[in-house]
Amino acid sequence: MLSRRTLFAAAASGIAATAVSRTALANLPDPVYSPGPKTAPPPQPSSGRPFNPVVTLNGWSAPWRMNGDWKEFHLVAEPVVRELAPGMKANLWGYNGSSPGPTIEAVEGDKVRLFVTNKLPEHTTIHWHGQLLPSGMDGVGGLSQPHIKPGETYVYEFQLRKSGTFMYHPHADEMVQMAMGLMGMFIVHPRDPNQYRVDRDFVFLMSAYDIDPGAATPKVAEMLNFNLWTWNSRVFPGIDSLPVRLGDRVRIRFGNLTMTNHPIHLHGYHFSVTGTDGGWVPPSARWPEVTIDAPVGAMRAFEFDADAPGDWAFHCHKSHHTMNAMGHDVPTMIGVDHRGMTKRLVSLIPDYMTMGERGMADMGEMEMPLPDNTLPMMSGSGPFGPLEMGGMFTVVKVREGLARGDYRDPGWYRNPPGTVAYKLNASSINAAPQPPKPTHNH
Amino acid sequence: MLSRRTLFAAAASGIAATAVSRTALANLPDPVYSPGPKTAPPPQPSSGRPFNPVVTLNGWSAPWRMNGDWKEFHLVAEPVVRELAPGMKANLWGYNGSSPGPTIEAVEGDKVRLFVTNKLPEHTTIHWHGQLLPSGMDGVGGLSQPHIKPGETYVYEFQLRKSGTFMYHPHADEMVQMAMGLMGMFIVHPRDPNQYRVDRDFVFLMSAYDIDPGAATPKVAEMLNFNLWTWNSRVFPGIDSLPVRLGDRVRIRFGNLTMTNHPIHLHGYHFSVTGTDGGWVPPSARWPEVTIDAPVGAMRAFEFDADAPGDWAFHCHKSHHTMNAMGHDVPTMIGVDHRGMTKRLVSLIPDYMTMGERGMADMGEMEMPLPDNTLPMMSGSGPFGPLEMGGMFTVVKVREGLARGDYRDPGWYRNPPGTVAYKLNASSINAAPQPPKPTHNH
Amino acid sequence: MLSRRTLFAAAASGIAATAVSRTALANLPDPVYSPGPKTAPPPQPSSGRPFNPVVTLNGWSAPWRMNGDWKEFHLVAEPVVRELAPGMKANLWGYNGSSPGPTIEAVEGDKVRLFVTNKLPEHTTIHWHGQLLPSGMDGVGGLSQPHIKPGETYVYEFQLRKSGTFMYHPHADEMVQMAMGLMGMFIVHPRDPNQYRVDRDFVFLMSAYDIDPGAATPKVAEMLNFNLWTWNSRVFPGIDSLPVRLGDRVRIRFGNLTMTNHPIHLHGYHFSVTGTDGGWVPPSARWPEVTIDAPVGAMRAFEFDADAPGDWAFHCHKSHHTMNAMGHDVPTMIGVDHRGMTKRLVSLIPDYMTMGERGMADMGEMEMPLPDNTLPMMSGSGPFGPLEMGGMFTVVKVREGLARGDYRDPGWYRNPPGTVAYKLNASSINAAPQPPKPTHNH
Repeated sequence: MLSRRTLFAAAASGIAATAVSRTALANLPDPVYSPGPKTAPPPQPSSGRPFNPVVTLNGWSAPWRMNGDWKEFHLVAEPVVRELAPGMKANLWGYNGSSPGPTIEAVEGDKVRLFVTNKLPEHTTIHWHGQLLPSGMDGVGGLSQPHIKPGETYVYEFQLRKSGTFMYHPHADEMVQMAMGLMGMFIVHPRDPNQYRVDRDFVFLMSAYDIDPGAATPKVAEMLNFNLWTWNSRVFPGIDSLPVRLGDRVRIRFGNLTMTNHPIHLHGYHFSVTGTDGGWVPPSARWPEVTIDAPVGAMRAFEFDADAPGDWAFHCHKSHHTMNAMGHDVPTMIGVDHRGMTKRLVSLIPDYMTMGERGMADMGEMEMPLPDNTLPMMSGSGPFGPLEMGGMFTVVKVREGLARGDYRDPGWYRNPPGTVAYKLNASSINAAPQPPKPTHNH
Repeated sequence: MLSRRTLFAAAASGIAATAVSRTALANLPDPVYSPGPKTAPPPQPSSGRPFNPVVTLNGWSAPWRMNGDWKEFHLVAEPVVRELAPGMKANLWGYNGSSPGPTIEAVEGDKVRLFVTNKLPEHTTIHWHGQLLPSGMDGVGGLSQPHIKPGETYVYEFQLRKSGTFMYHPHADEMVQMAMGLMGMFIVHPRDPNQYRVDRDFVFLMSAYDIDPGAATPKVAEMLNFNLWTWNSRVFPGIDSLPVRLGDRVRIRFGNLTMTNHPIHLHGYHFSVTGTDGGWVPPSARWPEVTIDAPVGAMRAFEFDADAPGDWAFHCHKSHHTMNAMGHDVPTMIGVDHRGMTKRLVSLIPDYMTMGERGMADMGEMEMPLPDNTLPMMSGSGPFGPLEMGGMFTVVKVREGLARGDYRDPGWYRNPPGTVAYKLNASSINAAPQPPKPTHNH
Repeated sequence: MLSRRTLFAAAASGIAATAVSRTALANLPDPVYSPGPKTAPPPQPSSGRPFNPVVTLNGWSAPWRMNGDWKEFHLVAEPVVRELAPGMKANLWGYNGSSPGPTIEAVEGDKVRLFVTNKLPEHTTIHWHGQLLPSGMDGVGGLSQPHIKPGETYVYEFQLRKSGTFMYHPHADEMVQMAMGLMGMFIVHPRDPNQYRVDRDFVFLMSAYDIDPGAATPKVAEMLNFNLWTWNSRVFPGIDSLPVRLGDRVRIRFGNLTMTNHPIHLHGYHFSVTGTDGGWVPPSARWPEVTIDAPVGAMRAFEFDADAPGDWAFHCHKSHHTMNAMGHDVPTMIGVDHRGMTKRLVSLIPDYMTMGERGMADMGEMEMPLPDNTLPMMSGSGPFGPLEMGGMFTVVKVREGLARGDYRDPGWYRNPPGTVAYKLNASSINAAPQPPKPTHNH
């Protein structure tokens, strides 16, 4: 037990220090480590072909070096400690200090060389999901290459044939390694930076974990009953908002590496899916949508013109995916013991209600005594009180005053008078016109 | 316990009487209450812009009053008792006496004013899913407005910018309130009544409940293992059929507020999705389908020309969604004790079959001793015997003789001779031609 | 118990012998029985309209006889024994000796007569999913016809109105009969053999089973927690590869009769869905894809030009669907007891890792003592070692040398030098250029 805890502690501290010995791997590109779980603002590329960089929600993009014609990246697979939201850290597996690993950004036509060093306790590989490449670079352990053993470094080289939205993840002990958070995004920009150009381009990956309340390490044999549904290994209120300037053309791209569909819903806008991990969707084939059902092992990009100012909820529409660990195993509070009692009561009194006497909304406001390293089920608060959300939830904030390159959270929006739902009180009721008879009553 | 039961009893009786004190809310539009769980025939609108009304399956449309330019509706959120099918009633939460609440129908360009009175035991809000509106009218508790406390009335006002298929539901303690059935449809008709015109236009909402056999109140912390899969909070054989006149252009629209996809399958026709909650699908983007996979938090409208007479099954294609409560907890009949025994037997005799000696079809015919207020798992009967269905199943009945405005169940269809599957008996076998050798056998 | 085992033993041996008494059903077409679980190469049709036959993955096509204008098939529903992969046989229900039953192939415009003999222990029917036919031929027990009782033979007759990808399955005691594997594909070829022509045309059906380790008969009341995810009732490494000649136009069609979506992912190619069970998707409506989310009760056909040689993984992207029975109930090896211990440990030591000390990859190589008739969870091996896969996984093998009609497994592909990921060793690291400072580090 102790050795396991020590291993993770070492991994965690290794993020700040240098986890790869420069002596041993002298001529590889220096692996660069995660700057932390906040959204990193996108810098312009300083070498290679020009492109308009994406913003990785609660993530960052991998630096590279040019080596002749080749754009070189160095990924280090290793145990990491990831803050899921303030108050909870998880022992995950990631790349270069974070789960997900850094977003790889390159340009159509680029030749990329990807060094992959395995610092995990078991073998791994990387599959470049969606890329058109030679079969021997496809990263399927046993099929396209031998597995990368702990301590080894492998090299992948291929030319990027098409722009689009892709991802990378292991194809080795897959269920375990993805259940531990080992994955990242791979964006290929068009050769012409004006093609498919937008003003804001956000990306994230969806993953799910099953972590018992009070624990920090996911159970890896889980199939359906995950209890933490994340965007880039973050849960609300740990997910940053998406700040957008009024009038911007906005693209949001996401991939799904959980075990179930996620119907991703944006309030306030009608939009279209414009891309998948197979390329760009032709305009004739686009559907108007408010909810995109993202399949497992697939990616979607959607776009809209940000013409409606305000704070717009953006979330998975499966309501248990916008909650944190349901705490079925937190014995004396919400969970098991109470339900055991309920079950016995129901057999005696059929109509006994299996929940709080008045619903669960109180939980959004309650300070419950949770085990250490456990998040509340429903959390976060907005300008008007508790949001009662967790998991896959955040807010797209559309603002008139925002600057072009500004990705800081602009705070909450106050709607102009007359565009806000309002409470009737005694006087406003009296002031309202007399009700005529309803026009039809059936 | 008793107080809980009393509360529901009061709510139930309140449907018949008047649940809102006219003195207290003198100048609000009079809330109108559900006429019951049968499909209400659609009356033509008597005020406001003209439109072709929809038919809500096992539901009804909300009346309104015109107040100057404004079309005013009054929704009252409250506990309701809903008959899921004859023989079982559930304690749900709904609007104006029913779950789902009444369908709201209005016209593109209409200014709507929606009064929402909270008579639930906890706070709520209403989110107008899919509508383009000011952020402050979006109904996300804590984000766009303060929650509506019990006893309070809130007012939402906005202009309807696009025609289409939308819904309304709480954005407050969401998992609980939707697990209790609090939701409704919102249809915006095109400004020109001839645009997108069809002859029959049906709508319904899908919801799921987890109610222990013998109980009446859903368990609200359920995530996956629901046992009652409903259309408009009804299960087969409680779902009305969809009567259609031969040759009619038919549209069916539905929304999904459960926690999983529903692949909705219609027999006998190939059709196309023509609309979502984001608008109308352009003809160039339409796929031919027989099954529409409805995502959670999304709506689909599909259309077809009813050129094939007959009784056509219409159902979710997940077979456990066309069954009622599986009764895993009904100890001495289908469920747990037997399976416990089976498990032990399997360890001794691997090939022991974990079901009835001859499948489960007998259940469609059996009269099993079920607990009070519990439906059979497989039920209903047609012209040729037991249908062995429950849950999300009904029949589209296409008839030559049906009148244009007739929505009564036309009864079962008898196919003309020669278009019916027939049983071979001794004489018909003998009359059949001698079998040649099979043309190829591989 | 014994009688049940005897029944299945009899059924199994009955496949080799003749299960239908020729005396009793003298004038029906002779039912032809499965040639076994290997992929049968497609013979050209020797009677009726010409067509380009499909290849059923680990399956076969039903022979027919012409009887005047009518193309006659004879399906016999009965218990069968199916090898899921070498080392495990399951007691299923199928048609003509196999589960799935034989693929029915016919041509647009054909008049088909389908004799269905019920040799199951309970009643059944056949629904011709996706076909446009008279209501009385639709096969919904109780609604379109009386159920077919054990021992009876029914006859369905209809003309095939549209080409496309369809299936057949019971519409009687549906959950049980599909959980037992009773289903098959039904391909209607276009009247003009050059329309929609491809060089390779593969088909398969997806089904799922819940079979306890050491048992052979599925549990039929399962709703979500299946443990064997199959293509044509086969699991990897029992699923044949798909051999394709370099440059071929390839179509792969599949149907889903499980209880959940399957995101089917092909490596190395971008492709489009070209058909559903509702017909052919017009080019204007096609999306580029690498993963097709196949809904339940639906079929998809996709196409691509096989321009990239190699061994391309082809699988469901839900990672627990590419594993065989997870063995939660195999007490002393992977499963329950260990986890019970873990749960107790987690309450004491929160960071204790709920899996092997170093992940699960060892399992791909381990020889574990499994109960008889149980497959390893992760299995198969390729040219570079263990593949660590099970369930819905196989390989599309694109080869230059393959002959037009050759469907034999061409073995593993060796990529040319320079197109293979390679391991860095001390000397190659030293030979690499000195790393410049990373171009940007954020």
